[in-house]
Amino acid sequence: MQLGEFGLIEVLRKALGEADPDLLIGMGDDAAVVRCPEALAVCSDTMVAGRHFFADVAASDLAWKALAVNLSDLAAMGATPRWALLNLSLPAGHGEDWGRWVDEFIAGWRAMALPWGLRLIGGDTVATDGPLTITVVLLGAQRPAPMRRDAARPGQGIWVSGSLGDAAAALDIARSRRGLPARRPQGLSAEAEDALEQRRLRPSPRVALGEAAAGCGVGCAQDISDGFLADLGHILRASGVGARVDVDALPVSSALRPALGEDWSAWQRWPLTGGDDYELILCAAPELEQALLDIGRATDTPLTRVGEIVPASAGIELRWRGHVQQVEGHGGHEHVF
Amino acid sequence: MQLGEFGLIEVLRKALGEADPDLLIGMGDDAAVVRCPEALAVCSDTMVAGRHFFADVAASDLAWKALAVNLSDLAAMGATPRWALLNLSLPAGHGEDWGRWVDEFIAGWRAMALPWGLRLIGGDTVATDGPLTITVVLLGAQRPAPMRRDAARPGQGIWVSGSLGDAAAALDIARSRRGLPARRPQGLSAEAEDALEQRRLRPSPRVALGEAAAGCGVGCAQDISDGFLADLGHILRASGVGARVDVDALPVSSALRPALGEDWSAWQRWPLTGGDDYELILCAAPELEQALLDIGRATDTPLTRVGEIVPASAGIELRWRGHVQQVEGHGGHEHVF
Repeated sequence: MQLGEFGLIEVLRKALGEADPDLLIGMGDDAAVVRCPEALAVCSDTMVAGRHFFADVAASDLAWKALAVNLSDLAAMGATPRWALLNLSLPAGHGEDWGRWVDEFIAGWRAMALPWGLRLIGGDTVATDGPLTITVVLLGAQRPAPMRRDAARPGQGIWVSGSLGDAAAALDIARSRRGLPARRPQGLSAEAEDALEQRRLRPSPRVALGEAAAGCGVGCAQDISDGFLADLGHILRASGVGARVDVDALPVSSALRPALGEDWSAWQRWPLTGGDDYELILCAAPELEQALLDIGRATDTPLTRVGEIVPASAGIELRWRGHVQQVEGHGGHEHVF
Repeated sequence: MQLGEFGLIEVLRKALGEADPDLLIGMGDDAAVVRCPEALAVCSDTMVAGRHFFADVAASDLAWKALAVNLSDLAAMGATPRWALLNLSLPAGHGEDWGRWVDEFIAGWRAMALPWGLRLIGGDTVATDGPLTITVVLLGAQRPAPMRRDAARPGQGIWVSGSLGDAAAALDIARSRRGLPARRPQGLSAEAEDALEQRRLRPSPRVALGEAAAGCGVGCAQDISDGFLADLGHILRASGVGARVDVDALPVSSALRPALGEDWSAWQRWPLTGGDDYELILCAAPELEQALLDIGRATDTPLTRVGEIVPASAGIELRWRGHVQQVEGHGGHEHVF
């Protein structure tokens, strides 16, 4: 079956473009029109097959992840997800059954979007001679003051949600299974490897945590997509401060822990620089710590204090097993064109 | 010179991310945050090299057009452009001098964006193994009620801005120069061909016209990107009405006119179904016609009445040289995947 552009748009509109009292004009006109909250957070991410995901990824997992990485950006601001645009570049002339692919994509999208009441209001679908490329744009209501990268101050605690390194370790497993260069984590059961893979394919953006933290006055946050050290580095540079991090305190999952052990290079590779975690870093003054712990319980989100912000002159100090450690580069993904 | 992702984002931010009192957080955080007008129009378009533009297009022309096609969508709603997101997928590993490319891109972007006070507030830059792909998202303040596709009513006049068919004829010239299948317009001077090419490369979105028309109560509009008949067809289907069109009245430029003459197939190919015009179709009740003419003069936009909306049962009737004509398909671009 070949699915034309207008047919595809109609399928998406029916499946994902539910009515919404604040949506004055939805999909199918030149532009969508929404009735706005006072402030709006806007983010977007582009993902390319063969670069950001394996080209044979299930359409449902791709949809989930493309939404999740953007929801994670809204979470880092403390915004409430409202509306989405989806721009798809689909490989042409491959005789693919895009109809079935789109059905699976819709299922994954709905699984991630519905809990947040997120509506698809627009986008574009085009054919490409290159790899499948997906751009998602999210609009969120920014009710509390946004959490910013440049608002870290000495004396604040550094908090991390969930656990770090799972997705990066899963990527190494997936690459190694495909015969690609990788460092396969050792000593993991098949169940543990599956658990890590689920974290890689279907991350859980910390939307409820972000909204609640901003609402109780936390002013500085960042989501962890490039890797904990790289993203903490973004905060430190933007804020003009340094940090002391207790690597022994870093939250790691029971699935990943056996692969880390006493191996500093493993700690560096996965929890510290691996990336793709979609957890939040929050910097909060001591008087907010009890409120943060309450929010963690209320939103069912593990929250761990992993260090503190210090003056810039101290740089970034990592302690592990009682000693200050050096890191070879902050890691993190950066595309070079 | 190789330009990394963060370097490129910094270059774009400095050149295009000017301050704006309603921009609470600009580029460089997880999301941008804007202070909103009451209603916001949102649109996006994706353009792929080799599909929507020749891969060797000048970066400045590409930037202009990627913005213009989106500005045209906002114009069709009557919205005022405010903010832009830019998602670029750049071919990797080609040893290209992206630094110079980006400088030219910025020049073209500024030429189109600055007159409308449009600010770049976010986006994404990634590497791709496929063709250059660009997605632009625009946010506009929707002050008057939006002009809609589904608001055409029998008795309204059908109006068209500017002239039709220039870009489509220029595309045929450009394709024929490259040895690609095309129908080259005959009888045009070199100057006329250049004028058409400028219309193809650098369309003029009818932003001021759209804002003013919506402001004076015009309720139905659509921009012409797929071709006049295809886009009029969108209005007719959405509104459940028909149309009578006087093809002799269709506005065509003095550059294109010699290639049309008495050849119905030429009229079909360029002004009626060619597309890429980025003009507006407006449907307006007779009592608004004087206001429309005044707006045309005030915004320096040629406006031509080309027909009228009739009940659906009449279908679409095209009159040319005193006779009703048939069209082989409504034309218009549709991607098949």
